Amino acid sequence: MAIHSAAIRWHGDLLELLDQRRLPAETVWLPVHGSDDAAAAIRDMVVRGAPAIGITAAYGLALEARRQPSPTLDNLRPAIDTLAASRPTAVNLFWALERMQQTAGQQQGDALIDALTRDAEAIHREDLAANQRMGAFGAALLPENGAVYTHCNTGALATGGHGTALGIIRTAWSQGRIQGVFAGETRPWLQGSRLTSWELLNDNIPVTLVADSTAGHLMQQGKVQAVVVGADRITANGDTANKIGTYNLAVLAHHHGIPFIVAAPVSTLDPALPDGSHIVIEERDGAEVRSIQGKTVAPAHCPVYNPAFDVTPASLISAIVTERGVIERPDRSKLLAHIHGPADGVHW
Amino acid sequence: MAIHSAAIRWHGDLLELLDQRRLPAETVWLPVHGSDDAAAAIRDMVVRGAPAIGITAAYGLALEARRQPSPTLDNLRPAIDTLAASRPTAVNLFWALERMQQTAGQQQGDALIDALTRDAEAIHREDLAANQRMGAFGAALLPENGAVYTHCNTGALATGGHGTALGIIRTAWSQGRIQGVFAGETRPWLQGSRLTSWELLNDNIPVTLVADSTAGHLMQQGKVQAVVVGADRITANGDTANKIGTYNLAVLAHHHGIPFIVAAPVSTLDPALPDGSHIVIEERDGAEVRSIQGKTVAPAHCPVYNPAFDVTPASLISAIVTERGVIERPDRSKLLAHIHGPADGVHW
Repeated sequence: MAIHSAAIRWHGDLLELLDQRRLPAETVWLPVHGSDDAAAAIRDMVVRGAPAIGITAAYGLALEARRQPSPTLDNLRPAIDTLAASRPTAVNLFWALERMQQTAGQQQGDALIDALTRDAEAIHREDLAANQRMGAFGAALLPENGAVYTHCNTGALATGGHGTALGIIRTAWSQGRIQGVFAGETRPWLQGSRLTSWELLNDNIPVTLVADSTAGHLMQQGKVQAVVVGADRITANGDTANKIGTYNLAVLAHHHGIPFIVAAPVSTLDPALPDGSHIVIEERDGAEVRSIQGKTVAPAHCPVYNPAFDVTPASLISAIVTERGVIERPDRSKLLAHIHGPADGVHW
Repeated sequence: MAIHSAAIRWHGDLLELLDQRRLPAETVWLPVHGSDDAAAAIRDMVVRGAPAIGITAAYGLALEARRQPSPTLDNLRPAIDTLAASRPTAVNLFWALERMQQTAGQQQGDALIDALTRDAEAIHREDLAANQRMGAFGAALLPENGAVYTHCNTGALATGGHGTALGIIRTAWSQGRIQGVFAGETRPWLQGSRLTSWELLNDNIPVTLVADSTAGHLMQQGKVQAVVVGADRITANGDTANKIGTYNLAVLAHHHGIPFIVAAPVSTLDPALPDGSHIVIEERDGAEVRSIQGKTVAPAHCPVYNPAFDVTPASLISAIVTERGVIERPDRSKLLAHIHGPADGVHW
């Protein structure tokens, strides 16, 4: 069955991904036929955002099963390894692959293909539903009539639809709860400039784009009432890996007494890791900082340090919002209770 | 007499400015014939950096006097107004123009031209000497064998030579005191990518370029032992206006217990303003954020907030370093004593 979201079009037997590297200038859809295509799209950032990466990997595996003469879980092992190696930090990728393997079990042939396809579709649909629940839980946390600062892109483009942090912002705006949004441009990949501002303008939500280094100045002037960001991996104690620059914002929000809210589906929680020191941080090529959209802006051989993510300690996080509810002032016991307890949305 | 520094070449009767907008790709010198040229060069950021702006304005006024049939201070009034209107935040501009007017006094004709020329040359030479003294005072404050984080460009390009914050780094490196430098790229104008990394590579000082939002992550990992920045205006209580993003760094340094050092000549001190709330912050065109080096990276009409500077409160500043010495934990009484007291370099 076909499922179309902002950046992921599933046609039942073919996946198309919106090439997010080319937004906002061009809208180009790239076909994905199997696991190699899917892994390349993840690695090369055609698709990005932890939930969207998980969905893409799931579809990539389902498509790969169709290409095999006699599909079994064992025969799909190289495809799973390729997909798992595409990006290291976002846990949703590994979560989706693990779930797909559970689903596959001992099935083979058409039954395996059908099961994987149905599960990939379920992962996609469930993510959209999760984001809508997250939006409702999170919007209630935002101060009324304020402005929200966000980082990177956590919207419909980064997920199965609606968005995580941007889903909270969308819901809050639709409720008339907030006045507008500041989007940090998010160097080096400029997801804020290219994607978040594009999504918000399309939805007629008032957005003001700023250089990342403007965040403190905005808070100092009282122009920001909350910071809402997504997550790529949340460890058992609440430490959160997210786009580089998130930690800067957490420290700034703490200094100014502004709520700092993390939004992510339960699939982003990784209770197997005790704390953030265990998270592998992807380090990317220095050319991403030395040049911007193909234009060189620094000396050719200048050394660069280009981590894609940073880790915000739980102590700086006011609340983590998932589709199951809100974890205020997260710690290990609250997080584990949240994962294993009833999905009633109460504050833990 | 000819005076050549990294970005300002004075030939005795003609000024040439290195077009810093085109670095590091191209080295182009633009001639300046009078006050209109000088004001345009300041406004359009051919030349930038508070001390370099002051020097350029002084030469621009001296050149303008040569163009007048009967030069007097009164006849130069429109030129002074044009120069003063070129950029609002850096106080060195106004300081240099005020000093030149004092020098001019009631002189006229060739005597006026000579006096203005000699004073502009003195401002240029004195700035270089001030930076070298600042370098020695500031280097002594840096933790040994650590790395220093800096922002924007405060080097030879921004001054009459050597640099303010970068002068401290140069001196500390020449003394073998520090291991290396992290340069924040400094969006939106990328002075860190384009200018600071270029200057440091030319001097064989180890530099690592980072996106501005990497600063907190570096500090969290213990990779930064001090932050050193310049200033565009320092008010009587020590509040400091500097390139947008400086305040972020000050909050981050404070959170991590890392020294945050401001370097600026005494001409940057503005005791007439009681505190930072009185500083006019220049707001620049949103196109500077929506596009980078002519390449559009955001939706064409996306609203942007693009302040060129922010204000760091004195409470977050470990020390202000001038050519007269060091003001630790600055406040109003220390700052006024520093301006009016003996230039003995002691810590106040």
